[in-house]
Amino acid sequence: MSLANCFPIWNRLTSEQQERILSVSEFRKVKAGTILHDGGPECMGLILVHSGQLRAYMLSGEGREVTITRFFEMDICLFSASCVMPNMQFDIFISAEKDCELFIIPACLYKNLIDESLPVASYSYDLICSHFSELTWLMEQIMWKKFDERLAQFLLEESRVENSLSLVITHDKIANHMGTAREVVTRMLRYFQSEGMVRLTRGAVEITDVKRLTALMNR
Amino acid sequence: MSLANCFPIWNRLTSEQQERILSVSEFRKVKAGTILHDGGPECMGLILVHSGQLRAYMLSGEGREVTITRFFEMDICLFSASCVMPNMQFDIFISAEKDCELFIIPACLYKNLIDESLPVASYSYDLICSHFSELTWLMEQIMWKKFDERLAQFLLEESRVENSLSLVITHDKIANHMGTAREVVTRMLRYFQSEGMVRLTRGAVEITDVKRLTALMNR
Repeated sequence: MSLANCFPIWNRLTSEQQERILSVSEFRKVKAGTILHDGGPECMGLILVHSGQLRAYMLSGEGREVTITRFFEMDICLFSASCVMPNMQFDIFISAEKDCELFIIPACLYKNLIDESLPVASYSYDLICSHFSELTWLMEQIMWKKFDERLAQFLLEESRVENSLSLVITHDKIANHMGTAREVVTRMLRYFQSEGMVRLTRGAVEITDVKRLTALMNR
Repeated sequence: MSLANCFPIWNRLTSEQQERILSVSEFRKVKAGTILHDGGPECMGLILVHSGQLRAYMLSGEGREVTITRFFEMDICLFSASCVMPNMQFDIFISAEKDCELFIIPACLYKNLIDESLPVASYSYDLICSHFSELTWLMEQIMWKKFDERLAQFLLEESRVENSLSLVITHDKIANHMGTAREVVTRMLRYFQSEGMVRLTRGAVEITDVKRLTALMNR
C-alpha cells in the first residue's frame, strides 16, 4: 500500500514535492464508526482515503445528520483541514462509515502545494467546485421540500376541474395560486417535462403522465 | 475605467494572458434590478464588477429569495459561468442590486487560465472556498432556525423550576429533553458562552445573563 497510489495527481508533482509529502504524512487505520472530525476548528490535515469509506455531514438543530458527501478510495477530503479552506467556519463532521486505511497530509504542507503547484491548485479548485455543487443541491432539497408534490396536486386538481389534460394557464397564474414565484413554478414544470410528466407550450401545460403525477402527489 | 484595474490578480498574469483576456472580454452597463443569470444552464461567462453591486441568490419552494452572497467592486462572480464550475447544477440567480458597470470574461477563456496559470488557479480556489463557506453558514442558518430560542427557553424554564441560576445538568440530558443530539446542544451552549450568556463548567450550566436569554427567547 502506498500514498502515491491513492493521490490522484501524484505523477504531476515534482519528485521534491513527492518527497516532502512522503516525509511528513502519516498512515492511520480507523474502525467503522470513528468520528474523525467533529466540526471544531482543529485542523487535523487532509485525509486521503486508501481503503474504506468516509462520510461528511452537518447537524441540524433537531440533531438530524445531513450528509453532504461521501469519500471513497482515492478521494481526498479537504474538510478535515480547515486551515486549507480560507474563511471556512467548518461545522462539518467526518466519520468513518467502514473500517478505513487513511493517509493524513498536514494542512500547512498542502497549503504550500496549492500556492506552488498548478496541478494541485487546479485539482483542488475542481474538488471544491464539486463540493460546492453538492451543497447547493442539498440546500435546494431542503428549501424545495414538497413543492413537487404540491405542484403535482395543483395540476391534477385543475385538470379535474377543467375536465381536460390540457390546461390553459400561465406559470404566473400557477405561482399566484400556490403562493410562490413564477421562476419556481417554471423550474419545477421544466423538471416535470424532462421527466415526461407534462409538455409545456406557450400559455399551456399539457399533462402527459397522470399516473406518475398522482404517484408523486401521494408519495 | 479598465478591466486591469478590477481584475484582482492582473499583475500576476503574463502579458500574453492579459492580451487574450482584453481581446475577448466585453464591457456592459446594467440597470439596478436586472436579472443577469436566472438559474438556467446558460454560461454567460465570468462577471467582473467594475462598479455597482450584484447579488447571488437561490429560490425556495415558497418563492423566497435566499441570498448566498453579494459581489462588490473588484469582485469576480463565477456563478454566472457554469462551464467553469465542474458538476455545478447551477440553480443560482444573479441580479444587479445597483446600477452596474461590468466586464464579462468568456468562461472557456477563464477555464483555460485555470489550467495554465497558477495565480488564477489558486485565486479561484480561494474564491470557491469562500463561497463554500458562505453556503455552509447559510445552510446552518436554515437548519438551526429557532434552536437558539428553544434552548434559551429551556434554560430559563429549568432555572425557574430549580430556583437557581446554576443548573446541574449534562448536555446529554438537555439533548434528551429537547429531542436533539448532544453535539447540537454543546455547540449552541458554547455559542451562548462566547456571547456571555452562560458559563459552562463540568456537568453544569450557569446562567450569567438572564436578560439577553429572555430577549433571545422572545425574539
